[in-house]
Amino acid sequence: MTSSDSSSLTSFIKKIAGQVEETIRADLALALAGNDPLLVEVLHYALLGGGKRVRPMLAIVCSRLCGRDDKELALLAAAFEYLHVATLIHDDVIDHAENRRGKESVGKKFGMAAAILAGDWLHARSMHLIGSLTGQEGLDIFCGATTAMVDGEFLQLRHIADTSITEQQYFAVILRKTARLISSTCEIGALFGKGSPKQKSALAAYGKKTGIGFQIIDDLLDYLGDAKTTGKQTGNDFVEGKLTLPLIHALSKASDSEKNTLLECIHGDRTLPGTCATARQLMVELGSFAYARQRAEKEIAQAIAGLSVFNKPEHKEGLAILTDLATYILHRDQ
Amino acid sequence: MTSSDSSSLTSFIKKIAGQVEETIRADLALALAGNDPLLVEVLHYALLGGGKRVRPMLAIVCSRLCGRDDKELALLAAAFEYLHVATLIHDDVIDHAENRRGKESVGKKFGMAAAILAGDWLHARSMHLIGSLTGQEGLDIFCGATTAMVDGEFLQLRHIADTSITEQQYFAVILRKTARLISSTCEIGALFGKGSPKQKSALAAYGKKTGIGFQIIDDLLDYLGDAKTTGKQTGNDFVEGKLTLPLIHALSKASDSEKNTLLECIHGDRTLPGTCATARQLMVELGSFAYARQRAEKEIAQAIAGLSVFNKPEHKEGLAILTDLATYILHRDQ
Repeated sequence: MTSSDSSSLTSFIKKIAGQVEETIRADLALALAGNDPLLVEVLHYALLGGGKRVRPMLAIVCSRLCGRDDKELALLAAAFEYLHVATLIHDDVIDHAENRRGKESVGKKFGMAAAILAGDWLHARSMHLIGSLTGQEGLDIFCGATTAMVDGEFLQLRHIADTSITEQQYFAVILRKTARLISSTCEIGALFGKGSPKQKSALAAYGKKTGIGFQIIDDLLDYLGDAKTTGKQTGNDFVEGKLTLPLIHALSKASDSEKNTLLECIHGDRTLPGTCATARQLMVELGSFAYARQRAEKEIAQAIAGLSVFNKPEHKEGLAILTDLATYILHRDQ
Repeated sequence: MTSSDSSSLTSFIKKIAGQVEETIRADLALALAGNDPLLVEVLHYALLGGGKRVRPMLAIVCSRLCGRDDKELALLAAAFEYLHVATLIHDDVIDHAENRRGKESVGKKFGMAAAILAGDWLHARSMHLIGSLTGQEGLDIFCGATTAMVDGEFLQLRHIADTSITEQQYFAVILRKTARLISSTCEIGALFGKGSPKQKSALAAYGKKTGIGFQIIDDLLDYLGDAKTTGKQTGNDFVEGKLTLPLIHALSKASDSEKNTLLECIHGDRTLPGTCATARQLMVELGSFAYARQRAEKEIAQAIAGLSVFNKPEHKEGLAILTDLATYILHRDQ
């Protein structure tokens, strides 16, 4: 259920995306004055003209909910986009991914060296901005989330093609890899907005649950999405041996013969299109995609319910946006 | 000229290295509690059991010179080693380097994914520590130096196999790539030590000049060093098309026929051992290695001269170490 219609969320997202892009342009102009032209080009390419800007929007809405809305808020929002894009660029190098946000990945277009270095630049700039705008407390939360993200990636590597991975282990991975940074975005937004401890922890919890829901849907779209809409190749996770929730569910529900088929797919040549298609068909039959969607719905419902601390008239608009956003995450197709 | 004998510097370096290693171990234990065992292993491998610890030592000595020496100082010093090691790990991925500090590089031993991610972890942790220990001013200096380092790497990429590169452009690269971070190490050490503006700027200038001298010698050792001692393959820069000071000098001093030989070497198959050997022989004949050494000596002499602001009896010991260290940089063989 959405508390306002989805077109108003879309127009809000567009407006925020425009503000954030403008702020990013201004910040890059300032921070990159006199820098190498290729570095400038790579960063503009990576940051502008794509992306859903979910994290910047969360930072802005959470700060506003706590009562602060000024010019610096867009810069805080940009810092989250910087870190997010840094991790996307490095992930794409690691995964040898050729496409991102509907265009060539930075590594594919500019080479690995440029990609690793541009990620490092964004890393440093994001920490600098967060530290400047939110002080020690913000830096603590942000750096803690960043190092946890690395831990999550290592955990994920550990479980490559690991058919004994449990749901609990999957959730441990996505908490670290995705949800904690989204949670930190909301919490730091609230901190910037001088929210009360209760408000900060409510928004941190909202971010965590929304982040988990977001990642489950992301993993679903990896199987079910349209490559043209998502800008990513379908079945990537499967090819790379990343066992996400639908596959973990399928393995646990499969009959012996179905399980053997799945194990053959996972331990066989995963790059053959037929291998992924066979596994996918079994996941459909076993209700694994439906199960994953239900799990995401549960997280999103809890995320929304936890916002009841914001019950004053002035919270109405922000609350509606966070509710819409969480709901949008469930129904997005990219 | 050294103001104390080199064995006392060696024992001082050893002592500091021991303290810093101990601090790194304790910080990793704290920051990595409950983290993926492979991440823990990679970070220990990357950080411990190797390295000259020049940056930690500089941070410590500069803080002490300004009058502060407490337990947190070793943690500040460790933060500089973290960032340094992060850049080494990422550089080695970019350069496909197989060896570092006399052992396999992180990328070679643990794979590219682990290397990129471990570098990101160290990046975040170093910024976190610098922000915590030195506040906004320290974070400004540190992040500025970090983003400048990326700019320096892009500048260097721009000049790959560029035989028209000038000395001035070479110095612009090494200032950003190396000297600014060493300068920031000294300046932040002074900031942590609550040094006066005059003391801070003297130490920043010392770091900058020492950093330039350090990089010139590093580039010399790339041609002249013993692979067993340096832990790096000789002639790497040449193979990668990085034109450093000796080669830039040789190109400017060569006769037409010598220049043609050099250009053939640079634009030919640089991976053949004979190609680098031919270029190297010409650089010997043209006095290019001697010239580069003189340039380094000049920087080091200026670095030492600029420390005259520290003229009180209590400065004597710290001053002697900075002088010895700058001199050591000229004569090191690794």
